[in-house]
Formats: sequence, C-alpha cells, structure tokens
Amino acid sequence: MKALIVYAHPEPKSLNGSLKDLAVSTLERAGHEVRVSDLYAMNWKAAVDAADFGTGAADRLRVARDSGRAFDTGALTPDVRAEQEKLLWADMIVFQFPLWWYTMPAILKGWVDRVFTYHFAYGVGEHSDTKYGERFGEGTLAGRKALLSVTVGGPESHYSARGINGPIDDVLFPIQHGILYYPGIEVLPPFVLYGTDRTTAEDYPDVAKAWEQRLLTLESTEPIAFRRQNFGDYEIPSLHLKEGREPAGRSGFGLHVRG
Amino acid sequence: MKALIVYAHPEPKSLNGSLKDLAVSTLERAGHEVRVSDLYAMNWKAAVDAADFGTGAADRLRVARDSGRAFDTGALTPDVRAEQEKLLWADMIVFQFPLWWYTMPAILKGWVDRVFTYHFAYGVGEHSDTKYGERFGEGTLAGRKALLSVTVGGPESHYSARGINGPIDDVLFPIQHGILYYPGIEVLPPFVLYGTDRTTAEDYPDVAKAWEQRLLTLESTEPIAFRRQNFGDYEIPSLHLKEGREPAGRSGFGLHVRG
Repeated sequence: MKALIVYAHPEPKSLNGSLKDLAVSTLERAGHEVRVSDLYAMNWKAAVDAADFGTGAADRLRVARDSGRAFDTGALTPDVRAEQEKLLWADMIVFQFPLWWYTMPAILKGWVDRVFTYHFAYGVGEHSDTKYGERFGEGTLAGRKALLSVTVGGPESHYSARGINGPIDDVLFPIQHGILYYPGIEVLPPFVLYGTDRTTAEDYPDVAKAWEQRLLTLESTEPIAFRRQNFGDYEIPSLHLKEGREPAGRSGFGLHVRG
Repeated sequence: MKALIVYAHPEPKSLNGSLKDLAVSTLERAGHEVRVSDLYAMNWKAAVDAADFGTGAADRLRVARDSGRAFDTGALTPDVRAEQEKLLWADMIVFQFPLWWYTMPAILKGWVDRVFTYHFAYGVGEHSDTKYGERFGEGTLAGRKALLSVTVGGPESHYSARGINGPIDDVLFPIQHGILYYPGIEVLPPFVLYGTDRTTAEDYPDVAKAWEQRLLTLESTEPIAFRRQNFGDYEIPSLHLKEGREPAGRSGFGLHVRG
C-alpha cells in the first residue's frame, strides 16, 4: 500500500503530532510506503489567489476557470502540482488534524482549496441524461481510500445523535462526502478521539493502541456506503435522491448513505 | 446599526466583490455605520501558530491554553485584536464568501481560527449542574446578529431536502450554529445565491435587488431559532437534547432548532 498522510497541526509535540508519527512508523513497519505532507512544516500557503494560476490567470480572476486552465497547461505552482502527484501516487490517504470550530484547520482547508482544482477534482467528465459529470463515486481519485483521524476537544456525548453539536457523522459529512467522495475517494469510517482537551500522557498508551489497530486494518475496513451519483439512485440533473430509496425515517445527510 | 462586513474573495471584480460593495453602499445610505474586513486585501494570515500568542507561548504550543493566556494579557497580535474589537463594536456581522468545498474559503476559516480565541469566543463562563459554560445563546458576542451571504456554484436542487449535497441548512449548520451561535451571536437566515458558476451580467440586477432588500430588512428579520444551551432543553453535562422536545420525525442538526 502507498499511504499519504496529510497532517495539519502547528505543534510537533502535540497529540496530533504523535498520532502522525505513529502512523508513519506503524505503516512503514507493516511494509507500506509512506509519504507525509506536513502542512505547517511546509509553510503551506492557505489562500487561493491569482498567483496560483501562473500566466494563465486573466485580468479578472475566475477561480474555477483559471485553476482548470492552469491544471490543463501544467501552469499550477510546484507546491500544488506536488500534492496532486502525491494524491495520484497514493492508494490510501490519512488526514490527521484537530477539529477546530467543527471543521478542519484553515491550513488544511487551504490545501483542499488549492490542490482540488477544476479539471482535477471537479469539472471532470461529461454531462448527459444519465450522467452529471464524474463525481461522488467516480472521478480523478477513484480507486483510492481515505481516513480522517480527528482529535476533538469536547466529549463524545456532545456529538451523539441528540448531542448539541450534532452527530459526528453529520459534522464530518461535508468533508467525507463533499470533499473526499466527490472526486471519487472511498472514505473509511473516521478515527475520532474525543475529550482531547483533557487527554493526559497517561491516556496515550490506550489511544496509541487503538490507532495502531485501525492503521493495521485499513485495507480490510469497509468504506462508508455513500451512494454513487450516476448509478440510478438520483434523478438527473436535479440530483434528488429518488423517492423510496432510503430506510424509513432517514433524512438530511444520512439519505446519501445506502442501506 | 453598526455593521461589520467580513469578506473573503480574491477578486474585487467578482460577484462576491460586487455584493460586498453593494452591502457597504446600501447600509451606509440607510444611515448605518459600516466597517469592512476585506481578508484578501488585508493579506490575512490564515494559519494559527505560536507567533499568534506572543511571548506567552510556551516551548510546547497548546492552542487553547496559549490563545487564552494571550487574550487575557493583551498579547495577541494586533491583527487579531483589531478583529476582536470590530466584533465587539458591531451589532450586525455580514459574512460575504463563496462556498468552496461545502464550507468557507481557507482565509475566512483562518479568520475564525485566529480571532475566536479561548476566553474570547470559547472557554467563557462557569460550569455547574445547570450550566455548561456560556455558549450557544450566551457568550462574549451575545446581543449581536450575523448573516451569511454565500454564493454557491451548483444549482439549488442539489441543496434541497433530498439533494445530493444535503440541505443547505445542514451544510451551513457547522458555521451558523457551531461558529456563530456558539459565542452568542444570533444568526439570521442566510442569503444564498445558487448556480453562480452560470450567473451572467444580465442576472445581476435581480440579484442586486434581492440583496438590497435583505440588507434593508436586517433589523426586522427573525433569527434562526437555535435552542439555547443552558435554559432547559439539554441535559447537563451530556448536552443531549431532552427526549420529546423536538417535532416528531426531526433528527440530526435540525433537532437544535426550536418549533
């Protein structure tokens, strides 16, 4: 397996840093090839702007058009091209980050915003009566799997079905379905550590053991059963889920998971 | 009314830029005071790191602790302090941004990550048997209102109840509830423009009219009825919504809206 770890935390000695290091050593010891994108160490540029698109950028920047043109002509900046190449190289992508304000840190969002360009991650494939582009189950990154490894300050109960933050599956849906599944990546159930504002050195051995176990079983873990877009579940082009496809009583984001 | 507009788009001539300019002129013409945080023009630093917390940052960075300490001692960087002051000055905060990968652009997330520090936006208030800090309806920014003005590339049907992206209310919940309502801001229903990948100059007059109308009725618009945390709807400290509080059949994020 070829594993890319995309890691976003400013402190190497943090829990996130330890989990990243453990992922590297565990996967390498198991015989896998590992590459790491340590976004803070790379001083990753987070904000999309005209400088991302080389000489192809026109007087008036249009992010989708100009990123697609730069992708097509090889004019994207070297940092972005390197990340796209890593994504194409990888079979498995592990994202290690703290949940800040219910989503990823800005530096990681900036990795998505800049690397997931038009014609690479979106704007791929034809539109027809039976197909609305290649996305949600198809796309440039099909054949790859990803896993979110997330540390969460608050307790698990706050992220349960009736918890005030909403169910963790819903909190992560815009990332897991909207960012990862969109360009074709299958998404494994996340590894979530709760209450990490109160995690101590004494808790770490148990945490490490659980994480190693997840890492060593990545290849046999079933992905989340998101519905594929172009294979009969949705009306085209409204992309409404057809009536009656879901289990009774299911609604919201959960509609887009089978069974 | 004192209105702060937080704006995140790299292109001044974009639809987002036009909507921001229109918000300034419309609100000023109506007699309101307006300030703008134009994050791209400010070259806003998106990534939280130790440099944000001055000399208070220890050898090992802990983001919550160190941001709280820097807030308490006035050691936050001037850019962050200026934004906190603007938030305290404002009655109304308008966020103007494109929906990129189902959430805000990285530069705006970086504004949240850096400005919403511990002891300012979270870690506020006491914990007791009846109170879990001051948040979700209470907090430093209570008494203020906010509105998201969002441009969305895809069509509205994709964001409807059965649409493949999930309902727009759920897509925006982590921002509206998780980021804005958390420190006490009341959130008005969003102004969402769909299909903006295909919006042309000919469409703009109608768009502008609708936006002006929203801007001129901000003060009389009812906020989203998110449930307050410490006023009987939730068990403390699990923060589970008490059984039977919701309309039959409602689940997920929607549980946390009354009525």
